[in-house]
Amino acid sequence: MAYPGYGGGFGNFSGQMPGMQMPGTSTNMFPGGYSGYPAYSDNYSSADDAMWNYFTAVAGQDGEVDAEELQKCLTQSGISGTYSPFSLETCRIMIAMLDRDYTGKMGFNEFKELWAALNAWKQNFMTIDQDRSGTVEHHELSQAIAIMGYRLSPQTLTAIVRRYSKNGRIFFDDYVACCVKLRALTDFFRRRDHLQQGCVNLIYDDFLQGTMVI
Amino acid sequence: MAYPGYGGGFGNFSGQMPGMQMPGTSTNMFPGGYSGYPAYSDNYSSADDAMWNYFTAVAGQDGEVDAEELQKCLTQSGISGTYSPFSLETCRIMIAMLDRDYTGKMGFNEFKELWAALNAWKQNFMTIDQDRSGTVEHHELSQAIAIMGYRLSPQTLTAIVRRYSKNGRIFFDDYVACCVKLRALTDFFRRRDHLQQGCVNLIYDDFLQGTMVI
Repeated sequence: MAYPGYGGGFGNFSGQMPGMQMPGTSTNMFPGGYSGYPAYSDNYSSADDAMWNYFTAVAGQDGEVDAEELQKCLTQSGISGTYSPFSLETCRIMIAMLDRDYTGKMGFNEFKELWAALNAWKQNFMTIDQDRSGTVEHHELSQAIAIMGYRLSPQTLTAIVRRYSKNGRIFFDDYVACCVKLRALTDFFRRRDHLQQGCVNLIYDDFLQGTMVI
Repeated sequence: MAYPGYGGGFGNFSGQMPGMQMPGTSTNMFPGGYSGYPAYSDNYSSADDAMWNYFTAVAGQDGEVDAEELQKCLTQSGISGTYSPFSLETCRIMIAMLDRDYTGKMGFNEFKELWAALNAWKQNFMTIDQDRSGTVEHHELSQAIAIMGYRLSPQTLTAIVRRYSKNGRIFFDDYVACCVKLRALTDFFRRRDHLQQGCVNLIYDDFLQGTMVI
């Protein structure tokens, strides 16, 4: 174990703060300290209807959306609230996060999963951004990442926070991009960490396939 | 070896096409089939002067540029030519490519290294984009990646090309972002592949530190 604080698991992938667990979800602990995906249930029929409307308005005949369509869909849904709409780049990594067959597109079930994660991340951001300035500070993103359950070295945390900041502060779009990447890369890593020990053996082609698209 | 076509090495990181080798460079082959970085020499004094002017015009007192300053600097230099200027996101991964101490900034020596790589990638792009439409097709990016020396499986190539395309085509900014990421991730991987066999053992924190910032 390279970093003593690692033992707490790879993070709660749902991006939820403690005390913000959504109805119908549960935190499944896997052996080895991983926290699992929340088991989203299907008891949100009215929310489903709204989502379905946003989704079908832009999805083509194939019933899936690509990054440009997802951007349109999320902008129209107003999920960003008073914050700026998501950039195309952030929408691309949102697609990549759930696109396990590398088609570059997202179906309605994945869209629902994304929607739940986005709402949780937005709540997190609003909790930190109390003056509604649209930005948070470096140490606030660090804290949020730790609270989500990711156990990272101070050096890694610093590098991540710096990467997603603009003029010393973190905007909502970059905050979400950071959350999406953290979840997607952790998921990629975990699927290969068969012994759940925080260590994997990777071949170059697989490494690039997983990391180039996120 | 997971993919039979892998043997050719991790790619020529300079991003040059065959026949486009710059003066003062050489292709150093390492044991195990890696091709090395070109050994850029210091015989470009007038080009250096121009670069120095662009650089110092935006670098602060610390003599380094962050992503916002790099974007300004590259836009003012006109290096994109008739293509759209680089996005902030692409500038961030340019910084990450050469930022080995994770400061989020770039000094003049790194800027020169970036400048040389950008010029080579621009030449590559212009070679493919013969009608100067500003975009290239999927199979053209695939070919360019292969010609740069990267040996990737068809599945990985397809996933990468799809990730960097917009409405079915690849724009110059995304092409460069793709080249920068390929080089940076390959570099990260190679530094850990001590036996140069295309296989590494990674711990989670190190994996995230390398991939979250790129």
